[in-house]
Amino acid sequence: MEDYSDRTSLAATLRQRRQRLSKLIDFPVILWSGQWIPRNFAANPFPFRASSHFLYFAGLPLENAAIRLQGTSLELFMDEAAASSKLWHGETATREDIAKKIGADAVFNLCELQSHSDSAATVAVQNVATYWQQTKILNRPVAPANAPTGIDLDLAKAITSVRLCHDASALLELRKAAAVTIKAHQTGMRVTKSQGLAEQPLSEAVVRSAMESVIIAHNMSCAYGSIVTVHGEVLHNHQYQHPLQAGDLLLADVGAETEMGWAADITRTWPVSGKFSPTQRDLYDIVLAAHDACIEQVRPGVEYLDIHLLAATVIAQGLVDLGILRGKASDLVERDAHALFFPHGVGHLLGLDVHDLEDLGDLSGYQQGRVRSSRFGLSFLRLHRPLQTGMLVTIEPGFYQVRAILQEPKLRSKYQDVVNWERLNQFADVRGIRIEDDVLVTQTGNEVLTAALPTKATVIEHLVNSP
Amino acid sequence: MEDYSDRTSLAATLRQRRQRLSKLIDFPVILWSGQWIPRNFAANPFPFRASSHFLYFAGLPLENAAIRLQGTSLELFMDEAAASSKLWHGETATREDIAKKIGADAVFNLCELQSHSDSAATVAVQNVATYWQQTKILNRPVAPANAPTGIDLDLAKAITSVRLCHDASALLELRKAAAVTIKAHQTGMRVTKSQGLAEQPLSEAVVRSAMESVIIAHNMSCAYGSIVTVHGEVLHNHQYQHPLQAGDLLLADVGAETEMGWAADITRTWPVSGKFSPTQRDLYDIVLAAHDACIEQVRPGVEYLDIHLLAATVIAQGLVDLGILRGKASDLVERDAHALFFPHGVGHLLGLDVHDLEDLGDLSGYQQGRVRSSRFGLSFLRLHRPLQTGMLVTIEPGFYQVRAILQEPKLRSKYQDVVNWERLNQFADVRGIRIEDDVLVTQTGNEVLTAALPTKATVIEHLVNSP
Repeated sequence: MEDYSDRTSLAATLRQRRQRLSKLIDFPVILWSGQWIPRNFAANPFPFRASSHFLYFAGLPLENAAIRLQGTSLELFMDEAAASSKLWHGETATREDIAKKIGADAVFNLCELQSHSDSAATVAVQNVATYWQQTKILNRPVAPANAPTGIDLDLAKAITSVRLCHDASALLELRKAAAVTIKAHQTGMRVTKSQGLAEQPLSEAVVRSAMESVIIAHNMSCAYGSIVTVHGEVLHNHQYQHPLQAGDLLLADVGAETEMGWAADITRTWPVSGKFSPTQRDLYDIVLAAHDACIEQVRPGVEYLDIHLLAATVIAQGLVDLGILRGKASDLVERDAHALFFPHGVGHLLGLDVHDLEDLGDLSGYQQGRVRSSRFGLSFLRLHRPLQTGMLVTIEPGFYQVRAILQEPKLRSKYQDVVNWERLNQFADVRGIRIEDDVLVTQTGNEVLTAALPTKATVIEHLVNSP
Repeated sequence: MEDYSDRTSLAATLRQRRQRLSKLIDFPVILWSGQWIPRNFAANPFPFRASSHFLYFAGLPLENAAIRLQGTSLELFMDEAAASSKLWHGETATREDIAKKIGADAVFNLCELQSHSDSAATVAVQNVATYWQQTKILNRPVAPANAPTGIDLDLAKAITSVRLCHDASALLELRKAAAVTIKAHQTGMRVTKSQGLAEQPLSEAVVRSAMESVIIAHNMSCAYGSIVTVHGEVLHNHQYQHPLQAGDLLLADVGAETEMGWAADITRTWPVSGKFSPTQRDLYDIVLAAHDACIEQVRPGVEYLDIHLLAATVIAQGLVDLGILRGKASDLVERDAHALFFPHGVGHLLGLDVHDLEDLGDLSGYQQGRVRSSRFGLSFLRLHRPLQTGMLVTIEPGFYQVRAILQEPKLRSKYQDVVNWERLNQFADVRGIRIEDDVLVTQTGNEVLTAALPTKATVIEHLVNSP
């Protein structure tokens, strides 16, 4: 495993992170990495994923380890690998090597953690077995990560504040993840073309396989369960068995995660045949207009909510122009009518987690004092903060024909005056479109980390058709 | 999701399994499927894997469900999907459709499970959150799956007895997994050849990626963490960053799992250059001779331990013939000297788990009354039973130069009279070789489900070199 950067050592990066944290809190912190989780039996676990908070401050995906932060000091708690484990898992870096690499001031066995745990705050980990250890070693109840209390709440706020804006070392990793994810999508587009040559239709699984193989070949993992589907209207669709039909749009939401845990998150939607139908192109262009308009607005100080509302407005106006909605765009958005077709938020934070810091719930996504709206068009907004330099957000507007929404009697009745259902029927070959990029807030505006992957319909067509 | 077979319906298969179980026990049984397990936050879980015992008797990978078996009756407990989940996960089969498909006599909400839980036995699941539910609903302590007590112990024995030998529906799935796994290995071998064309050496990750992509393209998953390594001497090596060098052997232990959970498990070892060196071929031929001799012995009534000892003997004799070991093969095996180079068991059960039933510990692998030996050459033997028709076992002898063994002072001293270390040094280009197939015990002998993938060195070379 390499350092984050050739210029800045991992130890220096981690020290800077501790310095930023130590300005916000005055109590010690213990963070656990977590353990292997059995899949069907103990010796057959899921791939290990360290807790993101641990990764942020420890830098390496160490298994069954903990770190203690106090001021700028760093102590590492982990056991030396048992001699017998060398047979099965080979020679591993010694604890001392690891401690040196991450700049730990001291290293202890895990059993010594208890005696170093006085008055320490923590974040509850997702792994239940490790969570037991947390409560046992801290000798007190630990509330779930999304509902912390006391010093754990103070810590959650402080960590949020530190992790919201990315440092140079994090950005190096995030750019690596973005670069590989771009290659994965390019490969997915190209493989779709082989459709025409195959004896029977390709399945979604074949395109997924081609995209994920790019990620695996770069020794990365998938940051989340890939969505590769001709049923883009199912927002979190994790089925891959459908055949690709000539008239289908294929929606692919696939992202890589580096070995150190940093994620990318890209969605593209392309035509299986290599060419959008006129109706598909009309709606694609609306989503793209929303996407472009939103990215244009990303800069320090702008409210992310306003970007979400801009997406809603551009989509509403586009649907009015196509005759699918009736009325004035701003009124339609006020009434949440856009959410009939764009029922999710325009995006979220991105970092070590694909929805960064989401384990902390709205503590991270929502500025202090703000709460989630219950409005149909706002309730799924995951981020409600003014943008700051160093934040990485996704911009991912979409258009979907979700049966559970459009056939819902109350919604149909509520919006009967603004939807032209007959006109909508003419767009039946569009089930789901989403265009998603990863946008870094910079001092002067923004930088789209995933800009090398085209969004324009004509260029997408070219990519699908290229050999 | 399709039925196991065109001829036998899933419901009929499951009824037969209940009939076999009901002959062995006279108490009700509740089996839990388990839940999504968070990766880094709740909404980003690992791919769902239902408990194998649940899969065996429920047939479908249902999330957060339970079944109650009593005699031949089957009751399904699961909640109807919430209306809101349709937005994110789409329309799913109704509970009633599922109940019909699996032949359930009744279907209930999960909250009704408690009132149907009297005197029921269970198997502790691996998922900790579900395990809590088990103890809560049964209102009693539930010991871990590998140390059950009372009726849970009786159940574990009964389930072992039923699952040890596969029925026709299971075999249909196991053959599917084997067929896709064979394709994955063929692809891995072919991709290795592109090494010669690449500007820089391929990494292990690239070959892994090509192999796993075959599995993903068939809408299957990996039954276990793939091993694709030029360091085959690390038995459970899950690193993939090493470059492939011309003189290396690449060891690939990769297996597919069908949607219904049935596994395959194949290992092949091939030369990166496309050609074995003379030393590599010498040792490969010894492992292959052990592999072939063991498979030849697989038939009903044969003790699996004897097959393991046969592998040890053939390897010991081969090493004597090469001048690496000194003495009589049978004496060397008696002294565990073979285990210096072949330190694991010759194989294991294969079914819904890649080490089938391993969650139950040696209850499943070891015939009642037998316990694991502490001998260096026997302690890792996972199966110690007479073979029966319908059992599926792996046969996977190997040769490894494990530093942690060969440099261990006590072992060096113990075996100093039988190892020719100088001669061994001449085989430094062999770090690890394993050849593994999946062998079904049939009435008349055996059938190698994975036989279509060649094992002969010359044919392996041909495959690596084929375009």
